[in-house]
Amino acid sequence: MPKKIDVTELILRDAHQSLMATRMAMEDMIPACEDIDKAGYWSVECWGGATFDSCIRFLNEDPWERLRTFRKLLPNSRLQMLLRAQNLLGYRHYEDGVVDRFVEKSAENGMDVFRVFDALNDIRNLRRSIKAVKKTGKHAQGTICYTISPLHTVTGYVDMAEELLELGCDSLCIKDMAALLKPQPAYDIVKAIKQTCGEHVRIHVHCHATTGVTMVSLMKAIEAGADCVDTAISSLSLGPGHNPTESLVEMLDGTGYTTALDKQRLLSIKEYFAGIRPRYAEFLSNITGVETDIFDSQIPGGMISNMESQLKQQGAAHKIKEVLLEVPRVRQVAGFPPLVTPSSQIIGTQAVFNVMMGDYKVLTGEFADLMLGYYGSTLGPRDPQVLQLAANQANKEPITCRPADMLKPEWEALRSAAIALPGCNGSDEDVLTFAMFPQVAPKFFSTRKDGPKNLGKDPSAVPAAPAAPPAPVHAKDDGKGPVMVPINYDVTFNGKSTKVTVSPA
Amino acid sequence: MPKKIDVTELILRDAHQSLMATRMAMEDMIPACEDIDKAGYWSVECWGGATFDSCIRFLNEDPWERLRTFRKLLPNSRLQMLLRAQNLLGYRHYEDGVVDRFVEKSAENGMDVFRVFDALNDIRNLRRSIKAVKKTGKHAQGTICYTISPLHTVTGYVDMAEELLELGCDSLCIKDMAALLKPQPAYDIVKAIKQTCGEHVRIHVHCHATTGVTMVSLMKAIEAGADCVDTAISSLSLGPGHNPTESLVEMLDGTGYTTALDKQRLLSIKEYFAGIRPRYAEFLSNITGVETDIFDSQIPGGMISNMESQLKQQGAAHKIKEVLLEVPRVRQVAGFPPLVTPSSQIIGTQAVFNVMMGDYKVLTGEFADLMLGYYGSTLGPRDPQVLQLAANQANKEPITCRPADMLKPEWEALRSAAIALPGCNGSDEDVLTFAMFPQVAPKFFSTRKDGPKNLGKDPSAVPAAPAAPPAPVHAKDDGKGPVMVPINYDVTFNGKSTKVTVSPA
Repeated sequence: MPKKIDVTELILRDAHQSLMATRMAMEDMIPACEDIDKAGYWSVECWGGATFDSCIRFLNEDPWERLRTFRKLLPNSRLQMLLRAQNLLGYRHYEDGVVDRFVEKSAENGMDVFRVFDALNDIRNLRRSIKAVKKTGKHAQGTICYTISPLHTVTGYVDMAEELLELGCDSLCIKDMAALLKPQPAYDIVKAIKQTCGEHVRIHVHCHATTGVTMVSLMKAIEAGADCVDTAISSLSLGPGHNPTESLVEMLDGTGYTTALDKQRLLSIKEYFAGIRPRYAEFLSNITGVETDIFDSQIPGGMISNMESQLKQQGAAHKIKEVLLEVPRVRQVAGFPPLVTPSSQIIGTQAVFNVMMGDYKVLTGEFADLMLGYYGSTLGPRDPQVLQLAANQANKEPITCRPADMLKPEWEALRSAAIALPGCNGSDEDVLTFAMFPQVAPKFFSTRKDGPKNLGKDPSAVPAAPAAPPAPVHAKDDGKGPVMVPINYDVTFNGKSTKVTVSPA
Repeated sequence: MPKKIDVTELILRDAHQSLMATRMAMEDMIPACEDIDKAGYWSVECWGGATFDSCIRFLNEDPWERLRTFRKLLPNSRLQMLLRAQNLLGYRHYEDGVVDRFVEKSAENGMDVFRVFDALNDIRNLRRSIKAVKKTGKHAQGTICYTISPLHTVTGYVDMAEELLELGCDSLCIKDMAALLKPQPAYDIVKAIKQTCGEHVRIHVHCHATTGVTMVSLMKAIEAGADCVDTAISSLSLGPGHNPTESLVEMLDGTGYTTALDKQRLLSIKEYFAGIRPRYAEFLSNITGVETDIFDSQIPGGMISNMESQLKQQGAAHKIKEVLLEVPRVRQVAGFPPLVTPSSQIIGTQAVFNVMMGDYKVLTGEFADLMLGYYGSTLGPRDPQVLQLAANQANKEPITCRPADMLKPEWEALRSAAIALPGCNGSDEDVLTFAMFPQVAPKFFSTRKDGPKNLGKDPSAVPAAPAAPPAPVHAKDDGKGPVMVPINYDVTFNGKSTKVTVSPA
């Protein structure tokens, strides 16, 4: 009997986040839900990541209502979300009470599986949210962000796996957000975790497809004992997205492994989304095919286009190669963080600044915070000279504690601010929406009654194939850059501090 | 020390044949030749397949001159071609003297490696051309066309491998023209051939990428002992094309295998063709992403669009699903031939006829010939009732001999006809060009003096993204459908025979 490999379907979250800037309207997902529910997936990723942000920023859609709708339409499925640990779905650290509340409300509204990650792999940033998930009785999946550096080793990943399991995680995820996980390390890491932590430990593997090697990595991870892999239905797969679900099924044919997936259902889902995809042509990623340069620069595809755009705005597009060479150096100075939101943007922007204005002549506020420990700890030591520059500029002491320990209880203040907003319905869910996106929520509350906007367009109504969308300057998501927001930098130049706002072109 | 895996680069032949209808002009390949020559490939496929046809049909380019140019520009590389055995580069069986002459002239003009295949895997059709290659002292690669049927087994492929080696082949190729080769059979076939025929037997593996599983198949073939795999530089890879060269290099990193390829050269080649690709936008395949349906219908991607086009012309586009179900039945009736030019077109068109007019009410002349053995023998027995219908309609006896045994020496007649043509230079090469394409060569000879045409267009001069080109009705190539030619059918309907010509819309 072949071993059954479980599959997590990404079509309702990461697939459209990676390929069409998280713009898919709920309305366009609903007709596929019955087939998805009955196809035999282990779980359906359908919430979290940038979807929450996109719902209120672009789609005038209540993300909590989206979750409840999925719960209703996918009665037989485990619903899965991606949670940025202490950042939840926002872009700052939240105080523990807010973390608890967010997890509790997500569970209450229907979430089953919480995949929890921290951009720096700082276990202290993961602890509270994992504990909160355990308290709800739901599935807590502890995540290891995969990256490559002289300091990142198989042993190191195994150590992190052990720490996650000590926190009570029900399963582990190896998260390869930049398609850097080659077949051999995929095999080695999964094998080593199984050998050290026990064969019973569930390991999930999440890979993007950008470099063209990760389908093989999934095979090798499976051979090493991985229990579940993530894929996306073929009509919304590949490029900066994921490996195709149907290909996974066929790949395993005749091997010692199999899936429980219903090929007829997969075909229906494929055909359905093949019809939906052209409606979002203007948001489609302009990366198609594969990009293996990533292995050298270690920068996720989305980040490269961000940096190109930043350089272009300053009339320095020709400096992109210099910047690509600078990124690994800045990463080393910062202690080799994985490059995933927000670290990818922070490192990338600092590399641009270094090339444009000289090494560390100007630091962004975020880079200073990263150097000073305000995002957590990194695996490697930080460069002491640059750390001193950061302390001087930000006029802050470096910290070594868990960043959230610096925060005071904030729920009541958030609640008061939220319920004062026109259109806020006073629920904890609305308070959490405000807490995640205090700049965006007020407008959303006031327009919510107008109902969701569908940004998809009938392709026959579109006169010609649209040009690729301009690359976002600053992608605030979990590593793939779909959501465009202006960023404010505190820039200190020759001792003078100014505020700089960088917006999409 | 990791084992070195050799690589054949397909960019100069099959990559642009599969992705841009074989339209790339020599002029657009020349600037990449130095990097290709120095990148460390085992061989560079650059001639044969549909390129010869396309040169004289569309590009007003002398295919022999193209070969000589490659010879000059790739002084350190083995040049490789795809040869349709007794069909050479044409679409009929040639008499042995023509086969000898063609191979001799190809070798003389610079060809090093001859990959020889027969659409039916009929070893008798392969014998003469392989012998001819051996006589020139060049590398003869015997090819096994991979297909799936109840009769095709690992043992059967091993038997064919043994027969090819008995003919003196210097290496073997497993040719997976429709991306049907899954990882496990890839492993099993390579392993079994090595075990039976000896570890020293060189095995090359050629896969298309259409189904999204064959990168894994290459990995498994390598683990089983494959010596060389075929890939295409990433900017002209995937879809109905091939797996990306750079991804292969990265895939092997850290495993017990490696390549000798120079990553900097690969990057240059990639960037160069990334710039060329948009010039051929109007010819680009409209298949992107993956198609796993092929595993069930067993029809190469190009053939499906052909059949859709045939049905549309008859106002019966809605019958495509019936036709897809009919194809495997027709294939069984014909003895389970692999589906590759010309068998794919013959089977596909007969399936359309069956659905439109009733089972075997009308037979195409080609299908009758296939049933009667005029293309060679198939692995399975042919349906006796349909065979009788074919004999009645074509008024021909079934044959069991090698088809070319029915042919009389034809060189002198071809020579006389060719040299009588205005513009023919009287060389054996010109006679062979005429022999391959007697309908097209006369016009080419007369316009040759005008020099090559480059069909690529500056993308900035193209107003909007062009629609996908209409699907060719009848693709006369080796399985991927780029070259459009009208086909004549002898159709017998209710006992009355008529000639029917089907041309591209």
